[in-house]
Amino acid sequence: MTTDEKYMQLALDLAVSARGNTNPNPLVGAVIVKDGIIVGTGLHRKAGEPHAEVLAFRMAGEHAKGATLYVTLEPCSHYGKTPPCANLVKESEVKRVVVAMQDPNPAVAGRGIQLLCNAGIEVAVGVLEEQAQRLNERFIHNMLTKRPFIISKYAMTLDGKIATHTGHSKWVTGEEARQDVHHIRHQVDGILVGVGTVIADNPSLTTRLQEGYGKNPVRIIMDSTLRIPAHAHVLDVKEADTIIVCDEDVSIERITALQEQGITVMKVRRNQEGLMIDDMLEKLYQYGITDILVEGGSTVNASFLQQGAIDKYVIYIAPKVLGGKLSLTPFAGPNPSTMDASWDVEVASFDKIGQDLRIIAYPKKGEGK
Amino acid sequence: MTTDEKYMQLALDLAVSARGNTNPNPLVGAVIVKDGIIVGTGLHRKAGEPHAEVLAFRMAGEHAKGATLYVTLEPCSHYGKTPPCANLVKESEVKRVVVAMQDPNPAVAGRGIQLLCNAGIEVAVGVLEEQAQRLNERFIHNMLTKRPFIISKYAMTLDGKIATHTGHSKWVTGEEARQDVHHIRHQVDGILVGVGTVIADNPSLTTRLQEGYGKNPVRIIMDSTLRIPAHAHVLDVKEADTIIVCDEDVSIERITALQEQGITVMKVRRNQEGLMIDDMLEKLYQYGITDILVEGGSTVNASFLQQGAIDKYVIYIAPKVLGGKLSLTPFAGPNPSTMDASWDVEVASFDKIGQDLRIIAYPKKGEGK
Repeated sequence: MTTDEKYMQLALDLAVSARGNTNPNPLVGAVIVKDGIIVGTGLHRKAGEPHAEVLAFRMAGEHAKGATLYVTLEPCSHYGKTPPCANLVKESEVKRVVVAMQDPNPAVAGRGIQLLCNAGIEVAVGVLEEQAQRLNERFIHNMLTKRPFIISKYAMTLDGKIATHTGHSKWVTGEEARQDVHHIRHQVDGILVGVGTVIADNPSLTTRLQEGYGKNPVRIIMDSTLRIPAHAHVLDVKEADTIIVCDEDVSIERITALQEQGITVMKVRRNQEGLMIDDMLEKLYQYGITDILVEGGSTVNASFLQQGAIDKYVIYIAPKVLGGKLSLTPFAGPNPSTMDASWDVEVASFDKIGQDLRIIAYPKKGEGK
Repeated sequence: MTTDEKYMQLALDLAVSARGNTNPNPLVGAVIVKDGIIVGTGLHRKAGEPHAEVLAFRMAGEHAKGATLYVTLEPCSHYGKTPPCANLVKESEVKRVVVAMQDPNPAVAGRGIQLLCNAGIEVAVGVLEEQAQRLNERFIHNMLTKRPFIISKYAMTLDGKIATHTGHSKWVTGEEARQDVHHIRHQVDGILVGVGTVIADNPSLTTRLQEGYGKNPVRIIMDSTLRIPAHAHVLDVKEADTIIVCDEDVSIERITALQEQGITVMKVRRNQEGLMIDDMLEKLYQYGITDILVEGGSTVNASFLQQGAIDKYVIYIAPKVLGGKLSLTPFAGPNPSTMDASWDVEVASFDKIGQDLRIIAYPKKGEGK
């Protein structure tokens, strides 16, 4: 690890601690180093609060002059809720700026860097770039597609079963893996299931962290005909908000009744396969949802898969074998005839969480079937 | 790692190189150390050839006197194809013997150790015992149950599919994982599939190692009504032997025809679930098969699972998602209603083989459903 990588790693480590808290903004960390001493550190903690660079320069004060700034994302060059960071960097008289990655927004990418170069500051781009891209995978996806980043999560046995044929699934995995899921819930804007899961399990879909804190994501229920039962826990919006996504031609009375309970009802177009995922995701993004954890059953999962809408997989595998010809698997949907109809992924990591295994994977690039 | 563990590890490393070659005998390695110098090494290379201790003492010669012998399995105390090693050890005048594990055969366990103790030799038992037991898992199982050791192998996608609904499965995994399977084939006495697999894929079930060598296991086909097609590759016994396991009441003409082709036909009792696995395994063990790689489809796999006959799992997981409500999963069979009807296993290892993941697991002790 080079010196540049060492400080960039620290900047990344600072940034990641705010995961889930900065949406819709990216996670950013900054470190200012002068003569081998860290003189300033900062991170973007929350949308509306200062950018990472601002906090780092505030701490560094006079020491910034002639120093090196490490920042995980290209400094912004536009006036938003805060003034452009690139100007601040310029004024600080740092000698050198090391940037992990360019701004993913095609409209502004490179402008901040250009501004610094023009001011005579030495700029290096691409240090720990891959880690920085992974850190802001949600933000990059948002910028490029104007859709929420979709995480497909499921827990299965060693023989690929997520539930028995009756839908029973309590529990596939152990306590540690289930806590791991609650950490993801804490970090995302939305959690999505189909109404089938609501009917079968009546989950509350809230975040229950052992640490005591925990942010509840908005609960998104795909329910094309609004057949959600009146006693469903997700209809109680005291703890968390709920969006019900339905078909365009459901009755206005049913919608009004739900709205009076404080539920948001979102109408989405459908085709022969069901609700159109892309139309739904476009509307959810406009609503302000930047990432969604899909915890749906086989059918909902398959809709996302078939429509190419999964951006990340988090898979838990429990050390047990269930068997059963009719037991449920993670993805149902249309039946391919040959193996080459499968969707290729890249495994980013696999490790043990308690007694279970966890695999994190991403769709292989260019898999736009 | 203590000094004892260091030399025992070497003895285990020597022993394992003969895997698949010593059946029905165990894998054994021996190392003789005097004043910190390895003066003798040996391993059991093949049934009928000298035991590990014999080769090690042959190498050590006079140096054995006053030395320490490390051996992965209790020296034998009975006259078999070779004279008892315990006598040899006694005569060698070694000072100390370190044994990884007792002989698993309840009829002789401890006798060799007792013989050495009686001769005034210092004996330590249990050094790297767990590794030694894993090394000889097949032999231990044989001794305790008089049945072949059953390895259930399957390759599935990240969503638990082993084939499409049409049975197409070429290929789930990549080249490296498939070579890994050929290494297992090379090491086992038998490979088993159902006739359904023979009809669907017409496999030859031989060992094809890139290294050029490779021992073919006996091919065992479960085919209760002898409906195997005449053109099946497994009926060609030039390359490898074949046993067809059928029901007790198939016609004598059909059996005779197969026998004339050089096929062994084995009749097994059946119950309402199909051929009785335990009756089959008893007969296969009597025939001389000490371990079997089960590469069957969903139905054969489920028969072994339901009858509690799986001793080890080797699972390959490919980085792809197939989907499909009717796609095939590793285990079909009867449908459990609740998750607690699953069979618990312990994951012994998980690692990457080429682009795929491999999980090795064992049924949890006491899981005798």
